[in-house]
Amino acid sequence: MQRRYRFEDIPVFDHHTDVLVAGLGGAGACATLEARAAGAEVMVLEWSAGGGGSTMMSACEMYLGGSGGTALQRDLGFEDSTENFLNYLKTAFGPYADPARMTAYAEGAAEHFDWMEAQGVPYKRGFYPHREVVAETGDSLQYTGNEKAWPFNDASEPVPRGHLPADSGHSGGVTLMTQLLSNVAASGADVRCDARATGLIQDDSGRIRGVVARIDNRNVTIEARRGVVLCQGGFIMNEQMSAQHIPYLNSICTRHGNPNDRGDGILMGTAVGGHAINMGEAFLCVANYPPRQLTYGIFVNDKGQRFINEDVYIARLGHYAAVQQSNKVYMFIDNENFARPAYAQAAEVVAVGETVEEVERDSPLPEGSLVATVNYYNAMAAKGEDPLFHKSADWLQPFGQPPYALMLFDLEALKPPVFTLGGLDTLPSGEVLNSDREPIPGLFAAGRTAAGIPRNAQGYASGMSVGDATFFGRRAGCSAAAAADNH
Amino acid sequence: MQRRYRFEDIPVFDHHTDVLVAGLGGAGACATLEARAAGAEVMVLEWSAGGGGSTMMSACEMYLGGSGGTALQRDLGFEDSTENFLNYLKTAFGPYADPARMTAYAEGAAEHFDWMEAQGVPYKRGFYPHREVVAETGDSLQYTGNEKAWPFNDASEPVPRGHLPADSGHSGGVTLMTQLLSNVAASGADVRCDARATGLIQDDSGRIRGVVARIDNRNVTIEARRGVVLCQGGFIMNEQMSAQHIPYLNSICTRHGNPNDRGDGILMGTAVGGHAINMGEAFLCVANYPPRQLTYGIFVNDKGQRFINEDVYIARLGHYAAVQQSNKVYMFIDNENFARPAYAQAAEVVAVGETVEEVERDSPLPEGSLVATVNYYNAMAAKGEDPLFHKSADWLQPFGQPPYALMLFDLEALKPPVFTLGGLDTLPSGEVLNSDREPIPGLFAAGRTAAGIPRNAQGYASGMSVGDATFFGRRAGCSAAAAADNH
Repeated sequence: MQRRYRFEDIPVFDHHTDVLVAGLGGAGACATLEARAAGAEVMVLEWSAGGGGSTMMSACEMYLGGSGGTALQRDLGFEDSTENFLNYLKTAFGPYADPARMTAYAEGAAEHFDWMEAQGVPYKRGFYPHREVVAETGDSLQYTGNEKAWPFNDASEPVPRGHLPADSGHSGGVTLMTQLLSNVAASGADVRCDARATGLIQDDSGRIRGVVARIDNRNVTIEARRGVVLCQGGFIMNEQMSAQHIPYLNSICTRHGNPNDRGDGILMGTAVGGHAINMGEAFLCVANYPPRQLTYGIFVNDKGQRFINEDVYIARLGHYAAVQQSNKVYMFIDNENFARPAYAQAAEVVAVGETVEEVERDSPLPEGSLVATVNYYNAMAAKGEDPLFHKSADWLQPFGQPPYALMLFDLEALKPPVFTLGGLDTLPSGEVLNSDREPIPGLFAAGRTAAGIPRNAQGYASGMSVGDATFFGRRAGCSAAAAADNH
Repeated sequence: MQRRYRFEDIPVFDHHTDVLVAGLGGAGACATLEARAAGAEVMVLEWSAGGGGSTMMSACEMYLGGSGGTALQRDLGFEDSTENFLNYLKTAFGPYADPARMTAYAEGAAEHFDWMEAQGVPYKRGFYPHREVVAETGDSLQYTGNEKAWPFNDASEPVPRGHLPADSGHSGGVTLMTQLLSNVAASGADVRCDARATGLIQDDSGRIRGVVARIDNRNVTIEARRGVVLCQGGFIMNEQMSAQHIPYLNSICTRHGNPNDRGDGILMGTAVGGHAINMGEAFLCVANYPPRQLTYGIFVNDKGQRFINEDVYIARLGHYAAVQQSNKVYMFIDNENFARPAYAQAAEVVAVGETVEEVERDSPLPEGSLVATVNYYNAMAAKGEDPLFHKSADWLQPFGQPPYALMLFDLEALKPPVFTLGGLDTLPSGEVLNSDREPIPGLFAAGRTAAGIPRNAQGYASGMSVGDATFFGRRAGCSAAAAADNH
């Protein structure tokens, strides 16, 4: 597919606009609203029959904090300094982090929450206190990530940062995106659905001048006088790109996203000199909760060794499960806390017994390995310690009465949900950078088309993708609207 | 830096040739020789003052086998079927592998050895039987990788495949490249040193028409009538690219390669639509040998858990050390086998004792963890078993007499050698592919500018980079020479 066109070869454009936004998910909607608010004429192209993107399919949690706390955090009695928030993010991503982007996000996240409320997205002043991936009580604030788990709790004060649309549970994306799409419709932006942006138009000086889109089975040229904002999602639905960039995960995963997450924006950006980074990183999860009582269990690899504090977020567990030498990890649990993991239906009880020895004997684990691990865990937990992984006191207790069960979490059977985290290198302004980190004039990107705040599964938390996409979508829209006009 | 130029904007070229080879390391020398052999006029540009590249700095081992055995393997009594070789490679790289490339290599490697001998590179009919990264006896055949280690020995019959230039030890690269460079000089190729290829010239149809090079402080244009072959190495010396693509390793590594491994070829290729893949993967090693007696020791992570069969190749050990939750791994060893690891001088003895308990008490390892691990290992080794990691019988024995030592291998202190494995997606022919896997007419790549046979550290073995670079360098040279002439 041709993804770069030469401006000088296009005698006349079919359409003209100030800002062209490609993709109407969370990032594209926010870019559109800000560009319109700045007075720019905006045309939006959406490949599918309607806006929403992967954001609309999600619970639409946003991972926000800092500035002393968002309005929601403060109303519910939580303080969260920018430094504390930043320390958490730094611990999450270490050398993978983009410091400029992270700082901008930590400093601006509280204002972003205000903006989202001003857009009419409802948030309920209710705090859900339990361990849960997505609260289903309708409350809007919860812990969503690794805040209370080691090593994060060493580096920053635990504060709940998951901001969920009110009364929505897993349907938060519908709540948020319905509101934003309605605002987009009212904004005067020219929204075209069933319209796939396929290529960028670049002039001989390197500046982006518009896009080529596939509309009604023909190529349509659209001039963007100020800028193009690429918001076309990630590439998990592009099987070839996934096989090339995340080969291992591609071989075991369930593709998680909307069907048009085919990497269009990334490929269009690289075709004009943009630099794609972090392309080998992806979210994956192995969900040991809900129900939260399963957190009392321990995970072992196929050597019978623990490899994680089990109170972490599901993506961190997923990462550390995936780097073990086999695709198989096991949960050991006692009778009182036994349950079926709601998000890991393919987990299978492979051994049950009245003693750990009996469970081990019926399991594929090496002789003596599980017994040693459980005995050590029990002895230490009785003292309130987990010297290996520092599981928090909330979830640390010796195993209770038998029977005991061993559940196999076989990654090949679980087929964990995966979506990609790599994308175009951008400045916090949304400007797309080349491999020398120089901006490509007239080109902006946000959402999973860009490499964002979350850079790997081990540091991921619910809300980081939607938080990043909407936050930097706004910035990209502002930047494009403020870019020098070509005319 | 401008990396793409428009052909139509160049009124007259400074030079003309059939095939332009950028970079005169192992891949570039082989591309040149084959293109000349096919009758093409060849110009070679080398950024540094002389040819050699990272190949010349290496021991120049080539990882070869198949076809019943190379001449060297057969002369020394070893058989190696193509299927056996291919099974080994598949086990090494799993879903990361490029099947077409791997098959071509497995089928052609024996012929490649013949070609190298025909070029005048000396190989000695001597087999070095011991565990060693590079034999220093002058013998040319050795085991270099994971052949005899689990899980490789389950998937394929162990055969030595490391082919070293005769009587060279670690200086094999000088032996091999001196010969190839002499042949290049005699071939009639027009070699220009101190000449850095910086950009590709592409016409409006997408075809590559030549390069722009920096020579004597000015930009020189060179038309390549048939093709350009990019052989400019990897990008480990480009600190910004390394920080972006291999952030974790970049933060701890010693950059391993020649100073011009700055990613020029990859960036030139992507600037004209080439697709860079595998960019997050790199070789790193944690060297527990030589001396080989250290293989009797066991490695534990900072939880006191073993994580690898210690008889693997140093890059596999490096990978599994790096994915542990801290940068610190430890070797436990007895008095008889204690030694300083020759390639890991920063390894530090952190505890010594007459008993395992005493060693553990003086160490930072959690209470009871090392004792449990050593006791379990001893008990199993006494039965000739390693149920956890299947260390081979050659290296499996209970620990002997005290004193015992615990050596810390802190990755931050060791600063392990790292070089990059990502690069342009190419066909076995060397043709550079775009993101739809369509060839870019007139563009070829080989060596670490391309994503090659070795795709990650866990499956790497000595000889895979030089083997791949020279093998596919030849193919790229043939392909470029055979490409349709523009004139």
